[in-house]
Amino acid sequence: MHYKDSRLNAKEWILSGRIIHPAYIKARRSVVSPNTFNMATSETMKAVVYTGGTEAFLEDRPKPTIVEPTDAIVRLTTAAICGTDLHILKGDVPTCKPGTVLGHEGVGIISSVGSAVKAFKTGDRVVVSCITSCLTCRFCRRGIPSHCLSGGWLLGNTIDGVQAEFARIPHADGSLFLAPDAEGITEKDLVMVSDVLPTSLECGVQNGRVEPGKTVAVIGAGPVGLGAVINAQLYSPRMVIVIDLDTNRLEKAKDFGATHTVQSGPGAVEEVMRLTGGDGVDVVIEAVGIPPTFALCQEIVAVGGNIANLGVHGKKVDLHLEKLWNRNITITTRNCDAVTSGMILKLIESGKLRAGNLVTHAYNMESVLDAYATFTAAAKTNALKVLLEF
Amino acid sequence: MHYKDSRLNAKEWILSGRIIHPAYIKARRSVVSPNTFNMATSETMKAVVYTGGTEAFLEDRPKPTIVEPTDAIVRLTTAAICGTDLHILKGDVPTCKPGTVLGHEGVGIISSVGSAVKAFKTGDRVVVSCITSCLTCRFCRRGIPSHCLSGGWLLGNTIDGVQAEFARIPHADGSLFLAPDAEGITEKDLVMVSDVLPTSLECGVQNGRVEPGKTVAVIGAGPVGLGAVINAQLYSPRMVIVIDLDTNRLEKAKDFGATHTVQSGPGAVEEVMRLTGGDGVDVVIEAVGIPPTFALCQEIVAVGGNIANLGVHGKKVDLHLEKLWNRNITITTRNCDAVTSGMILKLIESGKLRAGNLVTHAYNMESVLDAYATFTAAAKTNALKVLLEF
Amino acid sequence: MHYKDSRLNAKEWILSGRIIHPAYIKARRSVVSPNTFNMATSETMKAVVYTGGTEAFLEDRPKPTIVEPTDAIVRLTTAAICGTDLHILKGDVPTCKPGTVLGHEGVGIISSVGSAVKAFKTGDRVVVSCITSCLTCRFCRRGIPSHCLSGGWLLGNTIDGVQAEFARIPHADGSLFLAPDAEGITEKDLVMVSDVLPTSLECGVQNGRVEPGKTVAVIGAGPVGLGAVINAQLYSPRMVIVIDLDTNRLEKAKDFGATHTVQSGPGAVEEVMRLTGGDGVDVVIEAVGIPPTFALCQEIVAVGGNIANLGVHGKKVDLHLEKLWNRNITITTRNCDAVTSGMILKLIESGKLRAGNLVTHAYNMESVLDAYATFTAAAKTNALKVLLEF
Amino acid sequence: MHYKDSRLNAKEWILSGRIIHPAYIKARRSVVSPNTFNMATSETMKAVVYTGGTEAFLEDRPKPTIVEPTDAIVRLTTAAICGTDLHILKGDVPTCKPGTVLGHEGVGIISSVGSAVKAFKTGDRVVVSCITSCLTCRFCRRGIPSHCLSGGWLLGNTIDGVQAEFARIPHADGSLFLAPDAEGITEKDLVMVSDVLPTSLECGVQNGRVEPGKTVAVIGAGPVGLGAVINAQLYSPRMVIVIDLDTNRLEKAKDFGATHTVQSGPGAVEEVMRLTGGDGVDVVIEAVGIPPTFALCQEIVAVGGNIANLGVHGKKVDLHLEKLWNRNITITTRNCDAVTSGMILKLIESGKLRAGNLVTHAYNMESVLDAYATFTAAAKTNALKVLLEF
Repeated sequence: MHYKDSRLNAKEWILSGRIIHPAYIKARRSVVSPNTFNMATSETMKAVVYTGGTEAFLEDRPKPTIVEPTDAIVRLTTAAICGTDLHILKGDVPTCKPGTVLGHEGVGIISSVGSAVKAFKTGDRVVVSCITSCLTCRFCRRGIPSHCLSGGWLLGNTIDGVQAEFARIPHADGSLFLAPDAEGITEKDLVMVSDVLPTSLECGVQNGRVEPGKTVAVIGAGPVGLGAVINAQLYSPRMVIVIDLDTNRLEKAKDFGATHTVQSGPGAVEEVMRLTGGDGVDVVIEAVGIPPTFALCQEIVAVGGNIANLGVHGKKVDLHLEKLWNRNITITTRNCDAVTSGMILKLIESGKLRAGNLVTHAYNMESVLDAYATFTAAAKTNALKVLLEF
Repeated sequence: MHYKDSRLNAKEWILSGRIIHPAYIKARRSVVSPNTFNMATSETMKAVVYTGGTEAFLEDRPKPTIVEPTDAIVRLTTAAICGTDLHILKGDVPTCKPGTVLGHEGVGIISSVGSAVKAFKTGDRVVVSCITSCLTCRFCRRGIPSHCLSGGWLLGNTIDGVQAEFARIPHADGSLFLAPDAEGITEKDLVMVSDVLPTSLECGVQNGRVEPGKTVAVIGAGPVGLGAVINAQLYSPRMVIVIDLDTNRLEKAKDFGATHTVQSGPGAVEEVMRLTGGDGVDVVIEAVGIPPTFALCQEIVAVGGNIANLGVHGKKVDLHLEKLWNRNITITTRNCDAVTSGMILKLIESGKLRAGNLVTHAYNMESVLDAYATFTAAAKTNALKVLLEF
Repeated sequence: MHYKDSRLNAKEWILSGRIIHPAYIKARRSVVSPNTFNMATSETMKAVVYTGGTEAFLEDRPKPTIVEPTDAIVRLTTAAICGTDLHILKGDVPTCKPGTVLGHEGVGIISSVGSAVKAFKTGDRVVVSCITSCLTCRFCRRGIPSHCLSGGWLLGNTIDGVQAEFARIPHADGSLFLAPDAEGITEKDLVMVSDVLPTSLECGVQNGRVEPGKTVAVIGAGPVGLGAVINAQLYSPRMVIVIDLDTNRLEKAKDFGATHTVQSGPGAVEEVMRLTGGDGVDVVIEAVGIPPTFALCQEIVAVGGNIANLGVHGKKVDLHLEKLWNRNITITTRNCDAVTSGMILKLIESGKLRAGNLVTHAYNMESVLDAYATFTAAAKTNALKVLLEF
Repeated sequence: MHYKDSRLNAKEWILSGRIIHPAYIKARRSVVSPNTFNMATSETMKAVVYTGGTEAFLEDRPKPTIVEPTDAIVRLTTAAICGTDLHILKGDVPTCKPGTVLGHEGVGIISSVGSAVKAFKTGDRVVVSCITSCLTCRFCRRGIPSHCLSGGWLLGNTIDGVQAEFARIPHADGSLFLAPDAEGITEKDLVMVSDVLPTSLECGVQNGRVEPGKTVAVIGAGPVGLGAVINAQLYSPRMVIVIDLDTNRLEKAKDFGATHTVQSGPGAVEEVMRLTGGDGVDVVIEAVGIPPTFALCQEIVAVGGNIANLGVHGKKVDLHLEKLWNRNITITTRNCDAVTSGMILKLIESGKLRAGNLVTHAYNMESVLDAYATFTAAAKTNALKVLLEF
């Protein structure tokens, strides 16, 4: 972690000018106006912007307007920071250009809709999906909107996202979900439906074919891994083993339903084998995204089992087909398609599922840099999900 | 290939004594009798034996007898040589000890049954499955008899196999299939049900989820790859692309139903992409078992597609999760479970499926070394399946 | 059949004035103009209209125009008559009001598109689906566009249909399919994709879970039943038994792939049992829609089997749960959802599927009454599908 | 109910001689000995016998012995009475002949095994399955042991059952399940695995395709219906509506996880529609077995929904295909196949599932008539499951 003292003094840090990319500041000043960054008017809004540097930046931006008849404008009430936002700041996501408003997890109120929007109207309270779906192209029709020919992951990536007071949501009919209006549902519960819950359900639990009576291991107890722990229980496995390096996170995992925890490292494989009577695990969910954790999956998966990849990988991994070729293993990869988001909201509405307690920290817009710093320093701050409230 | 001239003079070769492991000859002579190898009596039979050397050996052996009440003794009428038999001769299969009778593909007549055999009687004409299934253990009940706790691949591996006049088949009820008695069905058709057809159907076509209208690529046009070509058509894909180095095999593949062929090498990926309109292939079936072919699978698989591994791998491979993590890919491995063999026999009975023309050569028992030589030299002899007839 | 002599003199018949509902004629004359029926201008087109009487009527109508931005206007080149059109004429379909242009099966060229249509442009050659899908509502997203909240079966039912020179297609993106441009594909092949092929595939073959090696019985050898015979073969059943009263149709069924035929009546059940070795049939597809045929399904279905209903039923049927409760039977109903139409077109494009030979008769627009008469008298004329060509 | 006073004086009743079939008493006396009924020796045991009359009868019987090498003898510790036992006493089950020991639900200790039993040994504590499976025949291999060619429902039906001190279990390997040895598991929990839990899971919940977020209605709150309520929660539906006439049972249903209850009768359909926002219910589980409840299923099932039949029907029912033909409904029937029993035991072992509290009454062997009387008078006694303890 970057900070010298335990107090997360992000503002001082940002003022040092080293983190926001200087070229960005220069470009913005010349192109727009000398003081775009801080010129609030009734036509502007606050937005968290990727500058090309390693820190997000709070900026005044023009409010978005309807461009296509299928657009909606959402006034955000809550947004969340995702690990992917940190990847952008590290420069790992070349599709995201400097100047882009960050964020693909948010909840808000529709402030206007285009003429071709059928399913929503101004005033509707909605969850914004991390995945934009046209509903029409061959990928959307096959249930793979993550590869939508004019959608997929756009928000906070190739177009401005939802860590802002307002956001333009393209293909609104396929990219928003009506928030249920039942007692006790909080913004925290709802914002988990933008990304964490459908991602962990679709890519981890459903792809891994969790079923009643199976054994499950989740490698990585970050927000998405814990989302998998929560969602796995929808299918009543008999064992949910969580594996992580961080003992704090392992402790936390028990609160979310882990039946057993195993610390990564020497002896972890043996411990998993002991817990499963030597069989290995029916469903292994990889929620880290690095070669060693994918290797661990292969060591603990049972004959006939599944390895469901949730992690975002930056490197190739070794696949030990010389050991696995005859073990009836299924390995799956998937991007969130958000095709379960509507169902998840029904479960939330009926009180059968709540994931709001994944939220450990919340900041208001002005403290956005604190929010990012807290999330970046998760190992120290024990942050899981960090919210921005408007 | 080992032979200097085009005439496959295996007998001369074997007489030279260099290929059969000398330790084996010595051991056999001392343990059994000085002339066990060639001492036919009414109690002995001819059998093809793995000696620890690189050539199979024809030997006189005591006829097998019922050991367990669930055993059956089958008098073979036809056996086939599998690529795995060659792996044994190369020393790649440590579970197979010198002295073992080879072979796990055969057709014959039951000559006796143990007291607990329920489904078969003396005189029944049967296909011997490459997989022995107790039907009782937890793996058999889950449909994974390849991992049967007292079965799996035993014949010609950990116990004597079917390249012999007689074979003892453990767990007969779960390991034999009654041969249909319809006009026009040959021994060639039947022996393909021992291994080639269920292996390619289960591990390749079913695991790969071939469905009407999908595109399929089969990498490797050996017997099992061509079995996948044949079986894929049961589900009416719109395209079956076969990829191989050998242009003769590619030509052959068309006879078995390939709609397109692509020669391996530079440009192969581009050609597959061209054929599929840039999408890649829905189902890629790997039927070779080496890193480069598995790499090719990853380059040509479409978003949302399947890679079904049929090949027997001896080394780890690279899995490019940095490219595939968000492409909704499913990779499967599987050993033949022979759970479709009964269904395959029904299709054969009704005339809807015939694979006997995979057989290119047939030899009688005395010419077993010619048979192996022909199969080993497949690139020269254009052999696909080579039979031994009794 | 209504006609006295073998020559189908429909025009004389219609001139007698007894079949077109007099109220309709009166209403049209008073509302529109005294001679609306026959007043072609550049703004009008020919259309086949339901008058409330038992005969369709050819009328001049204003050409349709774009109403919603999601509409397309299609200039029809071919339309087909469906059994449902006859039901309308009999007064069995109360949702279809007099004055409606008939027809939900057609092929044509797009002549204009609304501003929100994404997937099509003027000049595209398209198949019109019998089912209109908004792609957005909860039913469309679940794969049940037949219950689309603003779609479903609209054309030739609640709005004007495609037996006309032009038709307005609502929700064009979800309701049209681009026609492939491959050699040898005829309009006859294409128009079978409007209704016959997806209906028989989805409601019959897929709902019935036809799989390789299964036995199938199709009860009713009309166009949709024969569509099921054709489509069943995509999954390689080992037996396709067609059952009908009409021996001509049974003979025809063999041309489409029936492996066995059985004439309805006493002895039919016994014959099916004999063919299936006493087991009954794995998949029974009901393609008639009356109580006796549904009763027959129950008598011939095997333990663990499926009864897939294709027929349009006007009355309740007896379900013999006292016999079936413990026989592990699955009974399905379904309306065509047209979710397989795109895949079917790919199979047609690749030459793997053709159903154009279901067309037995074709008429030009002026002979529309002959066309209907021919189709109505199918038992006499051996008509299967009857086309209108423009 | 038969008894005049609230005290269930079954013994007086039985002594009146009117309930045990006189022919049975006579036959037994003449064939065996004048006093077979009450002649305990070290070779005899107590057993509950169907006499052909309306009351079960406690009788001394020879202890069973191994007949086939695949048999096991189980010394029962607990047995349960099933509604089917009452059907036998009413004469509704012609396959069960007078003289048969009743009972197909039991837990015990293996006292001896035949020579071909592979999976069990003397001393093993086991659950006896209501379904006997040879594991070998084509039905067992397809996962339908309820139609096993030499098994299925035998115990307490066509052969002597488990309401006795000892029972012979044919095909022991396929018909017994090892009882887990974890803390807190009671005989009550285990005996629910003989029939109630696998029946309600397989025929109701799995056949009905309960999935996360769906709505479920269970019609009939008897033991099997409540088993469905318990098992449905393994898949996290958002709503489980229980429908019954008996308000006591409805109250009880809430203890087992019903989210809503509806009393049968006028207004029930409207109430279900109100609860489901007018959509109807995704999964309707029929757990009664009479025409009116099956009619109710059809009125409340949603478009695209499932009706899963659990009830044992004695009469045909009306199926309103004129309403359902186009509503994409799936109706299933099934007998318990006990293919999930092993998995259920794993869930019990891990503490994820317990159904022992379905047991409301327990009696010792001598009070067997009280036990039957209590169960018969369930409406008065509020009995759900009634046990016999040995």
